[in-house]
Amino acid sequence: MIPRLPPVLIWRGGSGGALCLLDQTLLPHRVRYCVCRTAEDAREAIRRLAVRGAPAIGCAAAYAMVLGLRRSKAHGRDGLRRAAETLSARVRSSRPTAVNLGWAVERVRAAVSRSGTGTAAAAAAVALREAHAIMQEERARCEAIGRAGARLLRNGSNVLTHCNAGALATPGLGTALAPIYLAARRGRRLHVWVDETRPVLQGARLTMWELMRARVPATLVTDSMAACLMRAGRVDLVLVGADRIAANGDTANKIGTYGVALLARAHGIPVYVAAPASTFDLAIPAGNRIPIEERPENEITAPGGHRWAPAGARAFNPAFDVTPANLITAFITDRGILFPPYPTSIRNALKNKTG
Amino acid sequence: MIPRLPPVLIWRGGSGGALCLLDQTLLPHRVRYCVCRTAEDAREAIRRLAVRGAPAIGCAAAYAMVLGLRRSKAHGRDGLRRAAETLSARVRSSRPTAVNLGWAVERVRAAVSRSGTGTAAAAAAVALREAHAIMQEERARCEAIGRAGARLLRNGSNVLTHCNAGALATPGLGTALAPIYLAARRGRRLHVWVDETRPVLQGARLTMWELMRARVPATLVTDSMAACLMRAGRVDLVLVGADRIAANGDTANKIGTYGVALLARAHGIPVYVAAPASTFDLAIPAGNRIPIEERPENEITAPGGHRWAPAGARAFNPAFDVTPANLITAFITDRGILFPPYPTSIRNALKNKTG
Repeated sequence: MIPRLPPVLIWRGGSGGALCLLDQTLLPHRVRYCVCRTAEDAREAIRRLAVRGAPAIGCAAAYAMVLGLRRSKAHGRDGLRRAAETLSARVRSSRPTAVNLGWAVERVRAAVSRSGTGTAAAAAAVALREAHAIMQEERARCEAIGRAGARLLRNGSNVLTHCNAGALATPGLGTALAPIYLAARRGRRLHVWVDETRPVLQGARLTMWELMRARVPATLVTDSMAACLMRAGRVDLVLVGADRIAANGDTANKIGTYGVALLARAHGIPVYVAAPASTFDLAIPAGNRIPIEERPENEITAPGGHRWAPAGARAFNPAFDVTPANLITAFITDRGILFPPYPTSIRNALKNKTG
Repeated sequence: MIPRLPPVLIWRGGSGGALCLLDQTLLPHRVRYCVCRTAEDAREAIRRLAVRGAPAIGCAAAYAMVLGLRRSKAHGRDGLRRAAETLSARVRSSRPTAVNLGWAVERVRAAVSRSGTGTAAAAAAVALREAHAIMQEERARCEAIGRAGARLLRNGSNVLTHCNAGALATPGLGTALAPIYLAARRGRRLHVWVDETRPVLQGARLTMWELMRARVPATLVTDSMAACLMRAGRVDLVLVGADRIAANGDTANKIGTYGVALLARAHGIPVYVAAPASTFDLAIPAGNRIPIEERPENEITAPGGHRWAPAGARAFNPAFDVTPANLITAFITDRGILFPPYPTSIRNALKNKTG
């Protein structure tokens, strides 16, 4: 873990406990946890971005299953199986793009179903064990991503990152930032250009906050500055996370990633996508099949409640875009670094996805 | 002029009058003029972006010369000549990138010098005539740009624009938006994608405001969304203004323009730069010689006074970037549309720049 950084998720108590989420809508100004006691609490926290980042959302959703099951009025094996199914569909519907959400919820549902328990309390206990396991695994995956990616960073490297794919996006070191933390820990001098990442400003609010706490030198820029930094030779590599990666390597990530990747290509700068196995979705052949969430217009017209567009202004707010695989130099995963051709390297690396 | 849009600059009174500037830092929330009675008032208004946009800055600077000269304690031909020189250097130093500023100030200085007047009042009167002339000419240039550019817009065209190069950036119809206004007036249905243009949000605050007032359909997007709109085939052309154009066609414009132009090239979308003759600087051979203003970090970390980055966060804030000429499809000017090779087409069109 990173010193001076509060954990993103804490499960407090046994199967009667509560899910405490570091409320990321309040960062960097306030460090406050929101306490979720029901599946709906957790679903709402995911929806309003109190917790965000594909791996962290996956963990939160797994715990949401615990919260839902223990309140279930269902009984008997079949009753609880059906309850877990209904619940998983509900939790899954909070946000559409990150595959980790659906993947984690499905894993908990399958564990409950397999267990054949006949009471809500027992089902919740099974779900809790599975949620804890997912969280532990995701944490280990971050470490493995960090080890694999740290080799790509040289002394003096200037990294550009977009959005937040750091410790705040996962239960561990992060995905895109994990290699940076490990390389810095080994004494490498690095500098990170942080895209502010409009509209929700995950770069300005979250990535800057965690890099400053971890004492990694970082400079904030607007999203529109990446191109001129690249042209001036001030970016050595681009390192970003992912919300869902199709079987062919097409990658959905925070809106703006596609533009950054295209600009990097034009300047001969490598683009690395860091993601755990849980973010790959082999069921989707290509990026055009990834569902893209559209979020409220006021995230653009009035960020943080401060309106700066004229009243009545229309805005378009897709939360993600898809970077085609051919713009990605390599994937940094917990199964090692994957190079093109991606359909093959991804399939081989992911053979036992949940193993 | 555009109905329902207040003028950007008004000179109230004779040579004893005042320069009233629509305070664009308050838009779109409040329509208020700031009244400049001294050259320093005007310089400060330019510096803090109360007036912005290369042609509007040029006009404001010309009137700043009037305000400065009439308070001058100099007398005699040589004394006033020297006073005009000192004053022009001072006004010019308010912002470095837009060439219109230096060009307009120099034109007023030369007129005063040529006139050989020996009193401050007479020098101010000469300066006022010149400032009025510059404003009239710039207004006519906007109309000419509009006529030239309207031909490029078809029924149903989707235009993407960055920053504000509209009526609010000039004393007339605007530069990049002038063709849009003229085409709309002729009944063509158009739609404009408006980049919000971080950090100062000229797109969100100003371009949206004036397009909405002019009843041109417009949709606000973050700067990071241009690439995915282009990939989805939702942008037919890019139309932007300029702050300074070198003799070879390299163009300084609002930060982010270079990225937009590069993305447009990658998607086969034409990029048009609209600018009056006054924005071309034949004294500068190429873009790497254009001075680029760096502005305060808090425009990025705390826009409009609302801090969203962590306290102590470092930021880098270049206000402009340079788009190389080879990414520009054509220049739309008051002397017609200029195509490559630019060194020739620009030189030929600009033969009599002040004529």
